[in-house]
Amino acid sequence: MDTDKFFSKDADNLVPSPIREAFKLIEKPGIISFAGGMPDPATFPAVEIKRAVDSLDLSKALQYGSSPGMIEFREKLPDFAKMRGIKDLSTDNVTVTTGSQEALYILSFLLINPGDDVIVEYPTYIATLDAMVLRRPIFHGIPLQEDGMDVVLLERTLKNLKRKGKKAKLIYTIPCSHNPTGVTMSTDKRKRLLELASEYDTLILEDDAYGLLSFDRNAPDSIKSMDKEERVIYTSSFSKILSPGFRIGWVAAEKTISRKIDIMKQSVDMHTPTFNQSIALELLKNGTIERNLPAIRERYKKKRDSMTEAIEENFPKSVTFTRPSGGMFIFAWLDKKINATDLLPKAIENGVAYVPGEDFFFDRKPKNTMRLNFSFPSQEQIYEGIKRLSRIL
Amino acid sequence: MDTDKFFSKDADNLVPSPIREAFKLIEKPGIISFAGGMPDPATFPAVEIKRAVDSLDLSKALQYGSSPGMIEFREKLPDFAKMRGIKDLSTDNVTVTTGSQEALYILSFLLINPGDDVIVEYPTYIATLDAMVLRRPIFHGIPLQEDGMDVVLLERTLKNLKRKGKKAKLIYTIPCSHNPTGVTMSTDKRKRLLELASEYDTLILEDDAYGLLSFDRNAPDSIKSMDKEERVIYTSSFSKILSPGFRIGWVAAEKTISRKIDIMKQSVDMHTPTFNQSIALELLKNGTIERNLPAIRERYKKKRDSMTEAIEENFPKSVTFTRPSGGMFIFAWLDKKINATDLLPKAIENGVAYVPGEDFFFDRKPKNTMRLNFSFPSQEQIYEGIKRLSRIL
Repeated sequence: MDTDKFFSKDADNLVPSPIREAFKLIEKPGIISFAGGMPDPATFPAVEIKRAVDSLDLSKALQYGSSPGMIEFREKLPDFAKMRGIKDLSTDNVTVTTGSQEALYILSFLLINPGDDVIVEYPTYIATLDAMVLRRPIFHGIPLQEDGMDVVLLERTLKNLKRKGKKAKLIYTIPCSHNPTGVTMSTDKRKRLLELASEYDTLILEDDAYGLLSFDRNAPDSIKSMDKEERVIYTSSFSKILSPGFRIGWVAAEKTISRKIDIMKQSVDMHTPTFNQSIALELLKNGTIERNLPAIRERYKKKRDSMTEAIEENFPKSVTFTRPSGGMFIFAWLDKKINATDLLPKAIENGVAYVPGEDFFFDRKPKNTMRLNFSFPSQEQIYEGIKRLSRIL
Repeated sequence: MDTDKFFSKDADNLVPSPIREAFKLIEKPGIISFAGGMPDPATFPAVEIKRAVDSLDLSKALQYGSSPGMIEFREKLPDFAKMRGIKDLSTDNVTVTTGSQEALYILSFLLINPGDDVIVEYPTYIATLDAMVLRRPIFHGIPLQEDGMDVVLLERTLKNLKRKGKKAKLIYTIPCSHNPTGVTMSTDKRKRLLELASEYDTLILEDDAYGLLSFDRNAPDSIKSMDKEERVIYTSSFSKILSPGFRIGWVAAEKTISRKIDIMKQSVDMHTPTFNQSIALELLKNGTIERNLPAIRERYKKKRDSMTEAIEENFPKSVTFTRPSGGMFIFAWLDKKINATDLLPKAIENGVAYVPGEDFFFDRKPKNTMRLNFSFPSQEQIYEGIKRLSRIL
């Protein structure tokens, strides 16, 4: 049967995510993958999770729950948010989502009309772009510097929009250990970003997935923590500090926005699994999650160091790359003649995989870039994989 | 801050689900709730679930997974579908979703353009209506008879659309133990429905959430099992036969449609929790899920009988109600003067809750109706709750 005629017009905007597609690669034996964004399984608190399951009242943990999330879990989140400097949340501000991806998806739906102007970092997280593309916005990309978004260019962009009688609907940022670049935004720039958002009356969508994964120093407090106008919508995730297989994210927003998120969530998937929330709640209460953070940071710091060293030793000198103080990713700029997308099949032939950087730029223009993940492979694999990669560069 | 100006136009279509709102009621002490659609927690295989968790390789079960679902789980589903008569599925046809709600949401997005004609049962499942409303279709409601949808009226509706140069995009049906009415569609009507879908070139969306929960006799084979043109998109759920707190549903469709579902799912929530899929897979493999079915059916049959008896003994004779052969719900038509929505606060005052029936009709017109859930309350609560209800009718 010809199915094409049945699809909605919006279905045309669906693009398969190269990262998700890359998942297929790592299943091939012998491939060293820097492609995914997977945590090291050694960071999963397996024993504590099994113990938590044993202790659960399953008559509740296996039952339907409320759409914004279990009330006991939502009561814990404002407390947890204090680790990122956020002080004034109540349960009315928070929704538990199926990964922070769902929060990003729902917010795209709730906030963006077709044709709306949306400001994103250039590059930025691909799955957010994919969710936003379904709403057909006009993207404006702001390049990153070593200390985060170029706020001078941001101001210019906002000003230009104003001159045309327009307003950005939102500014999307990953201010800590940015995906894909690893860059962390300075406190000064966070303040400036907030000032600009206020002056030009736009929302900030702060994606703090890596906020608790800074190794070299504590990450600056979240932008949300400095927000006096409830202008910042804050998303975070338990994927990198507990388990991505649980799919537990959360979002904090001004109450009216939170309420809309809750209602939308009823239609999208009714609620985030009660079972998973119950386990995560137990691990928040008994301190497992907080207690594990130093070991995760230490582990990733070593891997970051291994990758940095291996790149310095092996890559051609023409390659520049970021030196992240946290997170999971290094971003590299290759010789301008190299197209990293075209190069990928050859890399895989040589037993190594990465994500071509162009996918992280909304306009897909910078072809000579790649994202390298260091959290999942072992230190030995990092050395070996970078060597393999250097051979074809 | 005034947030209204930031919302998209589509956000205006969000309506809070009365069922989800009703969840708040059952938390009040002393209220007997016929409102939710919750399984009896005694049907949860708690011991087997804990044992399954103990046996899991958590380095995989806690990790990210692929968007269509774990391949091992997807390989099991075609086999599982044989219980509903479906024989020809391959892994390319199936996607694991975060509850079947997510499948219904994604399909609404993929298939419905604003203004498209969509045929639904009258009444039908409210959360599907809510998901579809976000796409702004034109609904056409087909009343139910004792053996399912009135296919004569269906044909007339399809013919009328054709006369106007239009086509229904899809026909949504819950053919087994329908929610909210409990009605099961006969095999003859299933065949007729397929013929009509073929003749008028439309898709069928078959929601088989209760297909394995028929107590009086085996349910007729699914519509999907009779489908030779891949015209039927089939959704099902592990919520009623394993645990709703796991949020595991699945959808089977023609390959091109399946592929679009997978890509959309990447943006919505990336993937259904690997942890929950791993547990469900284990319980499929060791036969727990299939083995539990007879006990669940027996338990709900008794409760259905209790509710039917209690209604016959206590309700005014003017009330008519359905006598479902499976599922979780009885639907009642009250005296035409009674507005069940207006009556609800009084019912709650008297210690009993239900969902007003109007919410299940896309046009909210039939006010003198209510949905009564019998799966969650105990037999004693069913008797007492129906007595309380009868006092105010």
